Parts: sequence; structure tokens; C-alpha cells
Amino acid sequence: MHTAVEWKEGRLRLLNQTLLPVQTEYIECTDWQRVATAIQRLEVRGAPAIGAAAAFGLLLGAMEVTHTPDDFASKLFVIAEKLKATRPTAVNLFWAIDRMLRVWEQNQAKEVPGLIQAMEQEAIQIAAEDVQVNRRISVLGAQLFTAPASVLTHCNAGALATVGFGTALGVIRQAWSDGNIIRVFADETRPLLQGARLTAWELMQESIPVTLITDNMAGWVMKNNMVQAVIVGADRITLNGDVANKIGTYSVAVLAKEHRIPFYVAAPLSTFDFTKQTGDEIPIEERSAAEVTRLGGQPIAPAGVDVFNPAFDVTPNQLVTAIITEYGILRAPYDISIARIKKGGPE
Amino acid sequence: MHTAVEWKEGRLRLLNQTLLPVQTEYIECTDWQRVATAIQRLEVRGAPAIGAAAAFGLLLGAMEVTHTPDDFASKLFVIAEKLKATRPTAVNLFWAIDRMLRVWEQNQAKEVPGLIQAMEQEAIQIAAEDVQVNRRISVLGAQLFTAPASVLTHCNAGALATVGFGTALGVIRQAWSDGNIIRVFADETRPLLQGARLTAWELMQESIPVTLITDNMAGWVMKNNMVQAVIVGADRITLNGDVANKIGTYSVAVLAKEHRIPFYVAAPLSTFDFTKQTGDEIPIEERSAAEVTRLGGQPIAPAGVDVFNPAFDVTPNQLVTAIITEYGILRAPYDISIARIKKGGPE
Repeated sequence: MHTAVEWKEGRLRLLNQTLLPVQTEYIECTDWQRVATAIQRLEVRGAPAIGAAAAFGLLLGAMEVTHTPDDFASKLFVIAEKLKATRPTAVNLFWAIDRMLRVWEQNQAKEVPGLIQAMEQEAIQIAAEDVQVNRRISVLGAQLFTAPASVLTHCNAGALATVGFGTALGVIRQAWSDGNIIRVFADETRPLLQGARLTAWELMQESIPVTLITDNMAGWVMKNNMVQAVIVGADRITLNGDVANKIGTYSVAVLAKEHRIPFYVAAPLSTFDFTKQTGDEIPIEERSAAEVTRLGGQPIAPAGVDVFNPAFDVTPNQLVTAIITEYGILRAPYDISIARIKKGGPE
Repeated sequence: MHTAVEWKEGRLRLLNQTLLPVQTEYIECTDWQRVATAIQRLEVRGAPAIGAAAAFGLLLGAMEVTHTPDDFASKLFVIAEKLKATRPTAVNLFWAIDRMLRVWEQNQAKEVPGLIQAMEQEAIQIAAEDVQVNRRISVLGAQLFTAPASVLTHCNAGALATVGFGTALGVIRQAWSDGNIIRVFADETRPLLQGARLTAWELMQESIPVTLITDNMAGWVMKNNMVQAVIVGADRITLNGDVANKIGTYSVAVLAKEHRIPFYVAAPLSTFDFTKQTGDEIPIEERSAAEVTRLGGQPIAPAGVDVFNPAFDVTPNQLVTAIITEYGILRAPYDISIARIKKGGPE
């Protein structure tokens, strides 16, 4: 299994996800700028993977500014802000950087080498925890599957979107090994095809039966009783249970409701934004028109056409059957169940 | 304006729609086999355009078999069956060929040259009627727009899908010239991108404001109140008002219902199948996996991945606000309104 985010001998190794499945290529990041570029270019993507990558990015930045120790703190904060500005929607990015800054705060009294060491430990801890958290989510989520079923997923919330194992695909992996997955339908997920390129690839590597469909086939697949559940990841969840995730998730949730199919979200505590009441407050990233109008460099639409390209949408809590977290399976009313894990969590 | 289907000096000239908008190239068909291939390859597509092309295809076949007049009838029927076998879902194909065969039947007594002449007149008539019918549909449909609105359309039901003017896009053209269209949102329509390649292109040529979106953005566009109506074409409509159309139409109809947005279908009488009670009886064409896994020859999914690729889906009549035909605007209960136009029509 390829690892999306790996820290090794003072470098951050990222699997270049824009080239998959055609090429398997790694990017060796030795400075924070390269990490920021990788996040912007989607070479690393998926909310938990972005969070871990950003933590290591800030660590690389801290290692760099030790050369000018007089100004360490202010330079660190500038780098933190620049890393935070790479992408606006996934909250794990901010969560991981804030966690790293807290370690800096608590170790300010130390000499720089000790400070860097504490920050390195924290980044490694963020990455290690992500794998543990995903395994816990997977075991809990798999309990929702008590009989063999086919499921539909959108985008990629797999090992590649995390440090390891995955959230939505982690649940599917666990349910598969329990004998409760017949087949996975993977939405290709335009414009960047994370479903076709990443989800189908991950599942095929483990011989889990997967059928690729274009996004506009999801409704017809449900109408023909080909799936019994939907499970997706998340980029940000607000206090009321609204879920920001890859564009198209909202449409899938509406379709699931129409067909009385449960719609599950799998996400760690780090994906919850406890500062926001509802999804209306979540900033939605809009990306370039070229993502829609070109594919592999080739034009697939008329030159100069106007494009609307939001990278995410928000699924209102009423459409969410349950949210699977490492602290348990949350159900409506979400304001109450989310408030409970907010207290129980590491916050 | 480019013409999808044109009969000129004994040849059928088809605009090669697989190359648009990058190249504008015409195919000159001098035999029925080339017409059959063009329909199979989707070089000509759209239910009414396929119907007209098939009529001329049968004419070319008839012109060919006059060389062996002793066996004219049986050879003509073989060609008719082969043309009918090119694509299974759009009913206009069968309607047009049957209409041509009826002319043969009625003119059997004639010498072959007279027979060919009668068939040529009928094919020209089918094409000419299509343009008139579309103009009538457009004028009637535009009456549904009484105030400026933005609309969403799926696939291409424009001039390119017909002999001229278009069905759904015809209505949009007319409503635009009446001052009642603010903007058109065009679903790109995977896998073959008829929305991106054809609908956006047609609208841009006439300076009608168009915004291209990927199919999975339609729900989010509706949620954000960016469109006030949906209008699409059809490939086959059954007696109960169920509508077969390009894959993804069903999902759009469900989303429109969720957002209380009217969902209109524009189609001529030739798209109605008066032999079928419900959409369950409509054969749905499944096309090759390569349409989903490759784009412009490049792989966009893992090699060997399993694919489900239905070219059409069926929208149940309960989701259809109205069907715009040249005989008027039909509303539920469709069994009654469709029975009425069945009597009123040329059948």
C-alpha cells in the first residue's frame, strides 16, 4: 500500500496524487514552501492528509527559521498563516497547524533545538493518531453493516485521503473483511476524478469489488436497487451536523433520501469545526475553470466558456443518517450528539 | 449555424459531433452503411436527428438496391432492420424508418424510380417537419417563462440534436428572444460531454449567457437558488408519461423536486412510444467502458476497472412538471393527456 504522507529523516515524502493511477511518483519536500505548493496543487489532498502534511510543513518551516533564532516566533507565525491560506474548506488544515503552534507555545522556554524536537514529536503524533483514529472509525462504522450490502461512495476518503486506512473507505475495508460488502460503486467525481483515479485504484489493489460510474449515474444506480447505503468522508462538519464535502456530495445525499437509503459520513474529531454553528458559515473554495474545461491538457469545452467550479458543497444535517467518529456513531439531534463529543474529545 | 443533418444532391451530410467544439468536420454519406456507422459512433446523435438521418440512410439503401430490382423489397427490409439495430433507446429512429417503409408500401405499384422519388420526398418531409415541429414546441414552451429566469439543462437537446432549432434549447432560444432567460446552466453530461461540447457551444454562438458545470454541481446550483427551472429533451416517452433521456436526467429530476423547481421535457410527437405503457419497458442502451475510463485516448481510471455505463435513464412521470409537444403542453395525468395527442397526431 502506498502512503500519502510520510515523514522520513527530516523530509516529508508525499505521494503525488495528481498523477495516479497512471504514474506512482513521490515528492520529497525539504522546505515548507514545497508542502504549501503540494496542498494547493492537490498533490496531497483529503482533509486528514492535508492536516498531517501541513503539520510537517510547519515543522520544516520551524527547522528553517532556526537559522535566525532572534525572530523565530514571528517567522513561524507567518509560515503558519501561509500554510493555512493554501486551501479554505477542510478544517483539519487549521486544526493541525493550531495544534503545532500550541506545542510551540508550551515549549517557548526551551532552546530552539528542544523546541524543534517537541514540534517534530507533535507532527509525528498527529500522523500516528490519524491512523489509529481511522481504524477506530472503521471498526465502529462497520457495525452499521449487519448483512451483505453494496455501497456507493463519492470522491476519495480512503488511505490516500488520510495518513492511513481511510475514513469512509476504512469503514468499507473493515465491513468487507467482515463479509458485509458485496460491491462498491465509485462515483468518478468530476472535475478531478478522485473516485476514478484514487478510490477505484485503492479498492482494486485490495481486490474489493468496485464498479466505476460517472457522477450522473448515482441516481439510476439507486433507482435500480443496486446499492443499500452511501458512505462518504467530510472536509468540515459544523455544530449542527452540516457536512462540507467534495462537490456532488449534496446531490448524492438528496438522491439517497429519495430512495430511502442511509447516508453515512465518516470523519474524525479533527474534521469538526466547533466554532461554526451551521454549514452556511463554511467558506467554499472555488477553483479554476480549467479544471472543468480541460482534461490532461486537452480542451473538452469551447474556449472561453463561463464556468462555475465550487470544490465543495454542504449537505444539511437532515440528510445525514449518522456521522461515524472515533468517539462513536452520532445521530440526530446533532447539536446534542456533537456537543457531547466536543467535551469528550481532546479539546 | 451548423446543420447536423442535411440532404444535398443525393448525399447525406452529417456534422461530426464527436469532434466538436475543437473541429468542425462534415461526413459525406453516400451509402446506408456509413449512416449506420455514424449513428453507432454518435457522429450524429439526439433523438430527432437520429430519426432524420436514418430516414435518409434508408433512402440511400433503397437507391443502392435498385440495381437488383427483383429483390428490392426484401433487401430494403434487411437494411431497415440493420438501421434500427444501430441504437436501442431513442424511438424516433424506429418511427422514421417505419414512416419510410409505409411510403414504400403505398407506392409498391410504382416502378422503382417513382418509388425512390416518393421515398426521397418523405425523407425530406421528415427533416423539414422536424424544424417546423421544433419551432412550434419552442413557441409553446416559451409561454411557460413569464418572467426572466435562469434554467438548467442536461445533455444537448439543441439544433445539433435535431434537424434544426432544437427542442429544449429551442424553448430556451425562444424564451431568450422574449427576454425571459437570464442564464443557462449546462451540465457537462459525462461520459461524452454533450453539454460541454455541444450545448455550451450552441448557446455561445448565439451569445446566450451560459455557465458550464460538472454534473455533480446541479444540486448545489439549485440549493443556491441559481436556477428557477429545468428543461431537457427526451429519447422516448411512454403512454404514462415516463421519460427516457440521457443518463443523469433522472438525478436532475429528483433534485428539481427536492428544490421545488419545475422540471420540463420538450419533445415532438415522434418521441412518444404509443406501444409502451411505462418506462420499465424501454430498453436502455449500455455502452462501452472505454467511454468512462478514457478521454481523448488518455486513461483516466485504472486499467481493467469494472464500469457500469447506461447511456440513458428513465424519469418517472411523477417528477415531470410538463411535457412540451407541438400539439400543446401536456400535464398530469399523462395517460389522459398523451392519449389525447395520440389521437390528434398523425398516427
